[in-house]
Amino acid sequence: MSQNAFDQKKASILDEINSPQPDLSPKGSIDELCIPIMELINSHKDMVTTSSCSGRVSVFVEGTKHYNEEIKVGGKGQGGRWLFVSHDETNVVGWLDRLEQDSMAENIIVNIGNVEDVSKFDGSHRYILYKYEPFILHVKCRDFDVASKLYNTAMDCGFRESGIGSNNLVAIRINIKLDVPIGYLDETSNQLILFVTEQYIKLLDNITLAKFNDNAKKINQLFNKIEHDIIKDSGIGSTMEKKLTETKEERRQRKRREGLERQELLNQANNNDL
Amino acid sequence: MSQNAFDQKKASILDEINSPQPDLSPKGSIDELCIPIMELINSHKDMVTTSSCSGRVSVFVEGTKHYNEEIKVGGKGQGGRWLFVSHDETNVVGWLDRLEQDSMAENIIVNIGNVEDVSKFDGSHRYILYKYEPFILHVKCRDFDVASKLYNTAMDCGFRESGIGSNNLVAIRINIKLDVPIGYLDETSNQLILFVTEQYIKLLDNITLAKFNDNAKKINQLFNKIEHDIIKDSGIGSTMEKKLTETKEERRQRKRREGLERQELLNQANNNDL
Repeated sequence: MSQNAFDQKKASILDEINSPQPDLSPKGSIDELCIPIMELINSHKDMVTTSSCSGRVSVFVEGTKHYNEEIKVGGKGQGGRWLFVSHDETNVVGWLDRLEQDSMAENIIVNIGNVEDVSKFDGSHRYILYKYEPFILHVKCRDFDVASKLYNTAMDCGFRESGIGSNNLVAIRINIKLDVPIGYLDETSNQLILFVTEQYIKLLDNITLAKFNDNAKKINQLFNKIEHDIIKDSGIGSTMEKKLTETKEERRQRKRREGLERQELLNQANNNDL
Repeated sequence: MSQNAFDQKKASILDEINSPQPDLSPKGSIDELCIPIMELINSHKDMVTTSSCSGRVSVFVEGTKHYNEEIKVGGKGQGGRWLFVSHDETNVVGWLDRLEQDSMAENIIVNIGNVEDVSKFDGSHRYILYKYEPFILHVKCRDFDVASKLYNTAMDCGFRESGIGSNNLVAIRINIKLDVPIGYLDETSNQLILFVTEQYIKLLDNITLAKFNDNAKKINQLFNKIEHDIIKDSGIGSTMEKKLTETKEERRQRKRREGLERQELLNQANNNDL
């Protein structure tokens, strides 16, 4: 990718990020917690964020497991669906109560405890999985040197599952997870059956809250390290400091101004390409 | 790294792999299931495997969580210990019974059910975690082009958490996981307390067996894809086919022969460096 192609790609991505239209993620918008670190990274001329998730809790019913030739893993499959998903820790407590209320309406019943012997169940059942998935960020870099520097910074900071992919795209990943089967879909009665107690669910919720907390601390630590090791080194730090102390209204105005600048840059890049 | 430096590193790594001495992993030897894919990869002149795990089940007591400035994640910490760990699926069933027998001797008691209200527990407790972790393989490549090809092959095969790190080291990772808090260490009484039922543990064991199975299929799929897309392309396929049909005795003899060849190569590399 030529330098100009990177600049064009970056301008186009930033344009999308700053557009009032919903993005292509299921949620349709960028998670609040990701914004500072994304802005920090995007303030560097050689990097642009391409996708992000700040961390989330979810309760998922696995789809049908038609293995055939292809092996499906990770609970995906036809008919899989979320019972609950949130990037906001304030939604964690009470999700089960809310689900039970919804389920009444949908004629799906959540039974707690008192179920048949599950010790004979195997991999073929459609389980209900309670998951916590941490922060993940993809960053496209201008060249391999920049990708390497970002990768090393993330690894040093404990994001040990990071890696560089094709086209200098760095995936920043950390291992803060929960992956717990809490029930199953009884396909005969179409009932959702939990085989753990309500007390155990509350315990999982508490552990999830602690994980949201650990996760936020790690994002912050990564922000500081990227700022110190990459941004300040290239002399772009002062702009970011300004951004972090601005008011909401100042931010709104800056975003509009930057949007116009980006549009201008994008037009230029397009014109250069003609 | 110059070509010669890569060859020297490769010879030295292969020498270690084939040494009768225990390696540096906690287990001290290479997992059976990894051997065919490792041999396949190592049969290519531009790649060498540097570490591997075929997939494992474990039950782990978290260490003390002294956070201080540093944030610890993933359950590590001082005093953390395994209650059970195995790379062999035939050890899965019955681990709890065996642990209870051992624990009697150590004056640690496993209580099942009938415990205090755990719904108020939070992130500060030392939990007992039941984990399944899938196959992981690190492969050092001669240059970035080879690393890229291996990375793309792994990604195409569903190893979606793969990545290239520093020095063309490719980490091949997949997301087949379990991460379930099943109890805690009561630090006052030094008792291990399970807050799930024995029936639920048996269910986890069954899910783990299914994951061992999925994992083995994915390793096999990766083997075939690497053989087809990388090894056969470079015309080294026929050697591997021979290896896969050989008897145990033939393998022993080949290993000895290859060991001598490697030793010779290593000596040459060392001499070239003098």
